[in-house]
Amino acid sequence: MWKIAIIGFGNVSQGFLRILKDKQASLKERYNFEYSITAIADPIKGSVLNTSGLDLEFLLNMFDSKGNIKEHPNITDPDSLEIIEKSEADIIVETTITNLETGEPGLSHIKAALKFGKHVVSTNKGPVSVALPELLELASKNNVEYLFEGVVLSGTPSINLVREALAGCDIKKVMGIVNGTTNYILTRMEEGTSYEDALKKAQELGYAEADPTGDVEGWDAAVKAQVLANVIMGEQMKIEDVQRTGITKITQKDIQEAAQRRARIKLIAEVEKTNGKAKASVAPMEIPLSHPLANIMDATNALTFTTDHLGDVTIVGPGAGRVETGQALLTDILTIHRRHCRK
Amino acid sequence: MWKIAIIGFGNVSQGFLRILKDKQASLKERYNFEYSITAIADPIKGSVLNTSGLDLEFLLNMFDSKGNIKEHPNITDPDSLEIIEKSEADIIVETTITNLETGEPGLSHIKAALKFGKHVVSTNKGPVSVALPELLELASKNNVEYLFEGVVLSGTPSINLVREALAGCDIKKVMGIVNGTTNYILTRMEEGTSYEDALKKAQELGYAEADPTGDVEGWDAAVKAQVLANVIMGEQMKIEDVQRTGITKITQKDIQEAAQRRARIKLIAEVEKTNGKAKASVAPMEIPLSHPLANIMDATNALTFTTDHLGDVTIVGPGAGRVETGQALLTDILTIHRRHCRK
Repeated sequence: MWKIAIIGFGNVSQGFLRILKDKQASLKERYNFEYSITAIADPIKGSVLNTSGLDLEFLLNMFDSKGNIKEHPNITDPDSLEIIEKSEADIIVETTITNLETGEPGLSHIKAALKFGKHVVSTNKGPVSVALPELLELASKNNVEYLFEGVVLSGTPSINLVREALAGCDIKKVMGIVNGTTNYILTRMEEGTSYEDALKKAQELGYAEADPTGDVEGWDAAVKAQVLANVIMGEQMKIEDVQRTGITKITQKDIQEAAQRRARIKLIAEVEKTNGKAKASVAPMEIPLSHPLANIMDATNALTFTTDHLGDVTIVGPGAGRVETGQALLTDILTIHRRHCRK
Repeated sequence: MWKIAIIGFGNVSQGFLRILKDKQASLKERYNFEYSITAIADPIKGSVLNTSGLDLEFLLNMFDSKGNIKEHPNITDPDSLEIIEKSEADIIVETTITNLETGEPGLSHIKAALKFGKHVVSTNKGPVSVALPELLELASKNNVEYLFEGVVLSGTPSINLVREALAGCDIKKVMGIVNGTTNYILTRMEEGTSYEDALKKAQELGYAEADPTGDVEGWDAAVKAQVLANVIMGEQMKIEDVQRTGITKITQKDIQEAAQRRARIKLIAEVEKTNGKAKASVAPMEIPLSHPLANIMDATNALTFTTDHLGDVTIVGPGAGRVETGQALLTDILTIHRRHCRK
């Protein structure tokens, strides 16, 4: 029985808890995986603690009807660091908001959890971008895992694909479409929509935020390139080391000219190692229609790994969404279960 | 230190042994994986046995210059069952020729190895198709693994993708291009080549055999559909349960008409579970150009998994080749190493 505490009760955690509830029987049957949720910490929606395990159905019903869990009988003081300690959890699920400058508040949560000898699974890009080497060392020193599959393509296998299914291959290059919002905008532009109208549409659909800078200037893709370089190629890059160009200067004319050359413009994140030196970049690129990445449309994401034993291997799937990112947390937890199961 | 014995010394084993030799240092550094090859059994190329470990470089050089290893100082009697027993190997690599009717000789090799408590990794479709439930039970009873990633897409992750990276997802449907030869022929036909000429070209390139029935009548794809149904969906299908239509009746006209509808004809293997009942088939299908599978050309393979948490996830990569299939053996062995490592 794994005890799990949830830090940050936003969309991703909610998606994750719904999966856990719906799949309780199947996870036991297929993987012999059993869990109890002992705490949820969120300064706005409410924090609850019960080391004997919370009733998930009751809790999610309360959340659905009230939009918060402040009237839960197990309500507790909203100090997340204290909750991490008191939760008795073996695994901390860290899903607080991303801050690419400080990594906070996730960074403090993750450090505290690892120091207490707790495994951490997280979808928070901030701490991975700001402090990966330190966090991995801390995890290793405490013989626990720090896993973050969800930061690259949500639940679509990326880091785990390389670590397990492609084990033994050398990855020479990774290139891909890792930001759904910009790919959605470029897809609409190919149909004749202007950049401004396509962006507006993406905002209406909730793909792009009111301030779209993070997506359209390539910051989100740049973090993912940084993470891929550091995790898959063992680099120690900072976000500033990623050369970055967004899509704001792409015009209808560029797109139509590419089409005439049987190609499409895509915002491509690329990490390549040549002569032992890695380079990471994000930029709009003209991709020939014969390349698998050219045919990735709308908000779908994809990564092509160039390997020594297999040549190119491409994975295509969603790159965001609450259930999709919840799946990333689940697969990371099942990895911990496989590696550390106390039989 | 894992002791490994190789049964069947064809292209795949050769590819695998070259990878092992070239990556010895990197496998130790990255995965703490160490090995020695204690036996190779092949009735034609020669059988050698040395429980202290064979010198791989010496052996491969001898094979390169002579085309066999019959003059090796450790030459032994070519009785593979005896070699499996005497090899002291922890892991048996079974790569003998596929027989879809009897599964032999692989079936006897695998049964013997599992009974002796040895792990088995194999690229042999015969035993998986003929006797999967029995072999899995035997493996489980002896607390060893029977892994066969290579039978579906060579080293491109398929079974391992679902088992580990997609763990927690329910797979509702799998559809894909799992035979490179027929996809190569269909690609050439789209360029205007007749079926007969395209087949001849595939034979010249070594994709198709002199008797191309296994590929063009869909048998090879049908085994893969059967394996996917049985492994991923827990079915107990036989090869006869797979509805099977080949590509021999596809004409230029069919292909041009599909193109006019912005689609391509692909030989699609499909496994679907509806209302708890699974159905497997192989047939030429018209795939709209917007679908990721439509853009898989030449000998490349691909599988689209329809999942509950992620919607469609597609993997694209090679489906054959000696190094590519050798990689499948390596990744399976590294899985055994992760799960059973005696620290």
